[in-house]
Amino acid sequence: MKNLEKVASSRCFAGEQLRFRHWSEALSCTMHCSVFVPPMPGRQTAPVVYWLSGLTCTDENFVQKAGAQRVAAELGLILVTPDTSPRGEDVADDPDGAYDLGLGAGFYVNATRSPWHRNYRMYDYVVDELPALVNGSFPVQDDAWSISGHSMGGHGALTVALKNPRQFRSVSAFAPICSPTRCPWGTRAFSNYLGEDQTTWAEYDAALLISGATARLPMLIDQGDADQFLDQQLHPRLLLEAAQQNDYPVSFHSRSGYDHSYFYIASFIDEHLRFHAEYLGVR
Amino acid sequence: MKNLEKVASSRCFAGEQLRFRHWSEALSCTMHCSVFVPPMPGRQTAPVVYWLSGLTCTDENFVQKAGAQRVAAELGLILVTPDTSPRGEDVADDPDGAYDLGLGAGFYVNATRSPWHRNYRMYDYVVDELPALVNGSFPVQDDAWSISGHSMGGHGALTVALKNPRQFRSVSAFAPICSPTRCPWGTRAFSNYLGEDQTTWAEYDAALLISGATARLPMLIDQGDADQFLDQQLHPRLLLEAAQQNDYPVSFHSRSGYDHSYFYIASFIDEHLRFHAEYLGVR
Repeated sequence: MKNLEKVASSRCFAGEQLRFRHWSEALSCTMHCSVFVPPMPGRQTAPVVYWLSGLTCTDENFVQKAGAQRVAAELGLILVTPDTSPRGEDVADDPDGAYDLGLGAGFYVNATRSPWHRNYRMYDYVVDELPALVNGSFPVQDDAWSISGHSMGGHGALTVALKNPRQFRSVSAFAPICSPTRCPWGTRAFSNYLGEDQTTWAEYDAALLISGATARLPMLIDQGDADQFLDQQLHPRLLLEAAQQNDYPVSFHSRSGYDHSYFYIASFIDEHLRFHAEYLGVR
Repeated sequence: MKNLEKVASSRCFAGEQLRFRHWSEALSCTMHCSVFVPPMPGRQTAPVVYWLSGLTCTDENFVQKAGAQRVAAELGLILVTPDTSPRGEDVADDPDGAYDLGLGAGFYVNATRSPWHRNYRMYDYVVDELPALVNGSFPVQDDAWSISGHSMGGHGALTVALKNPRQFRSVSAFAPICSPTRCPWGTRAFSNYLGEDQTTWAEYDAALLISGATARLPMLIDQGDADQFLDQQLHPRLLLEAAQQNDYPVSFHSRSGYDHSYFYIASFIDEHLRFHAEYLGVR
């Protein structure tokens, strides 16, 4: 496995906001990822929160726009933010350059169809390769991982956590795509990445996964009620109904007047990091 | 005077982050500006803090990256963020598209030389036209204005405040260009915008203005000691020495390890807004 090569570093809230480049075996391309390391007076290790971003984003949107470092510094949380797809000139993209397929739109799945299957293995990257790199490079507290994300990245956080409940202490999501098998963004992505056999889609659908979940993970879902994608793409009710039928506890916060933007995320990222900190054993 | 036309709006920390377009008489072009309006339970008016951004920025960098809305919402401050230069295809720009002259680099002066004099009147825009528009459109508390900025915008905030001490209650700056007549960015901009007669430059040089200042305004200067532009461009010592010789009190904060980025601004914007709030009569 190749190491992380630092390409940028800025002090931020007495910690360090870092950016790295590395070769990804899972994705067969060079990737960037960002890591915030909090100040750690008198401590050897810190818990980590993974953040998965939405369509069109890179690793930098959350880092620059969410304002998460302030509370992460206060709580002593490492924040790890991967990119949203493989990258590079050799990586397949939508022929029309659409924002919701290909580059910037990896959907955190392992693609099985050509031409996507060569690089689009974001599930393996996020679940296995990146955590191994992070654990090898930063003082991560053993077994203290949580995960969060926004929109496509909220889908990613929920599905990754539901499929790996022993790997994470808690999961949260802002305006997640809750049932990609039943919305235009998801069906377009999954039919390209996974093919027309919809039985293979179910393992990446949070609402379907929570129906059959046996383990329980603390889960917080956040949704603005002025979100322009709420009705067509996000469908939180499908997730909440499936959770209820399976007696899976979910905290759901509806936010009056908030849209899909990072202004919304910035307004509530504090609450999410404090939620995770509780299960990560902070204080 | 033309009105502000709203082009974007997002709820943020229970307030509203707004963006406007309007025709500027001072600049002879269409401009964008951003305004954050805090939640105002039980209040009719709010004080306002103007923010002037640095080279290459638009009105949106501060809005997206500084995380200022959280404390502005808490304190009940309106934040007004103009663009950094006139804009449009008809507006003169550096022939080589350099980042430090022309578009994105107005330096908050009234240009007197061709071709710049037609549009580059950012001083009049920031001091007169924009405040009149803001006061006509938002519930601004009478005479409760403060001003802050970063780098080129720190220069702008300091010079605007020093030249109009009765218009503002307080001034602060992050990593300001403290003496543009004595640094490469400033001499290049001023020789283009104002011509070779350097006697006309002095009225836009904070270190020179503070030498002759009679009125006193609460002033906070912030500077990272790992700032890549500190030695060549910023020269805070020239301002501090001139202030001391004129018995002008200046609070100066040197921040260990911080660079010139918005990660630095985000780390300390709280302190600056609380500084201004004290003089704006908040609480």
